[in-house]
Amino acid sequence: MSQQTVSQDATIEADPDVPVIHIYREFAATPQQLYRAHTDPDIFIRWIGPEGMPTRIDQWDARTGGSWRYVSGADGEHGFHGSFHEVRADRIVQTFTWEGMPDSVALETLTFEDLGDGRTRLHTTSLCDSFAERDGWLQSGMEVGVNGGYAKLDKLVADGAL
Amino acid sequence: MSQQTVSQDATIEADPDVPVIHIYREFAATPQQLYRAHTDPDIFIRWIGPEGMPTRIDQWDARTGGSWRYVSGADGEHGFHGSFHEVRADRIVQTFTWEGMPDSVALETLTFEDLGDGRTRLHTTSLCDSFAERDGWLQSGMEVGVNGGYAKLDKLVADGAL
Repeated sequence: MSQQTVSQDATIEADPDVPVIHIYREFAATPQQLYRAHTDPDIFIRWIGPEGMPTRIDQWDARTGGSWRYVSGADGEHGFHGSFHEVRADRIVQTFTWEGMPDSVALETLTFEDLGDGRTRLHTTSLCDSFAERDGWLQSGMEVGVNGGYAKLDKLVADGAL
Repeated sequence: MSQQTVSQDATIEADPDVPVIHIYREFAATPQQLYRAHTDPDIFIRWIGPEGMPTRIDQWDARTGGSWRYVSGADGEHGFHGSFHEVRADRIVQTFTWEGMPDSVALETLTFEDLGDGRTRLHTTSLCDSFAERDGWLQSGMEVGVNGGYAKLDKLVADGAL
């Protein structure tokens, strides 16, 4: 088979019942590779966020009970931080705050589902405390960062960086 | 005025729109005293949980990005743990897992509202990822622990322990 080089967009859905955003995305990577992509800071900064947006890590302790903070943007204006509630091979649960809305907190759960043949489906849920806040995220253009980041992650996998 | 010695039950309400439990409770204490009651582990273990339930701290780092774990019960069978997403004078945001349901995570926000005259209203929201889970908590008898714990906290305040 030929190497897949065109990235697919993630499926981004509003939950019908609770203020949750679901993001589904398949990767030509193993669960172990996706786990590393989300826990190794040197890998993480190479793919997180939209194309052309540099990111630096300010704090990173990817273990249950640890915490994280990174800053994105050419002029370093976008800070994000949170805590790792649980870090395990098939699941990461973490809090998430964009510092532009410092009192807003989402609870994110990332699940790595092994599809076999070196493929994995990533399912992320972001639980917000109101539908207004959830819908604000959906209307924010978040898909640009999600899809741009995952396209970079596809390329890291294809390049053997993981 | 005479010293108030009878503890009032907390108001425990299901949010009508989102899978949240609201708990409201007034205390004859300042916001600073309630903050200390939730962040000083030596004070916290003296009031958390129902009457007669001993608690020991296993892990405690009450600062933004820190984490916590405590174990309750005469035979130490009930473990609870989480991360402190934010710890500040008027608000604590933390994750919460009862280890009997290890994949279940709630996002709790505690707000200390100064009512003046040495009184404070504590408002806790517990955001669950489904209505079924939220309603399960409401039907679990949680009010016994909430009210028993807050009655002990009233007594610590009256005794000058804070």
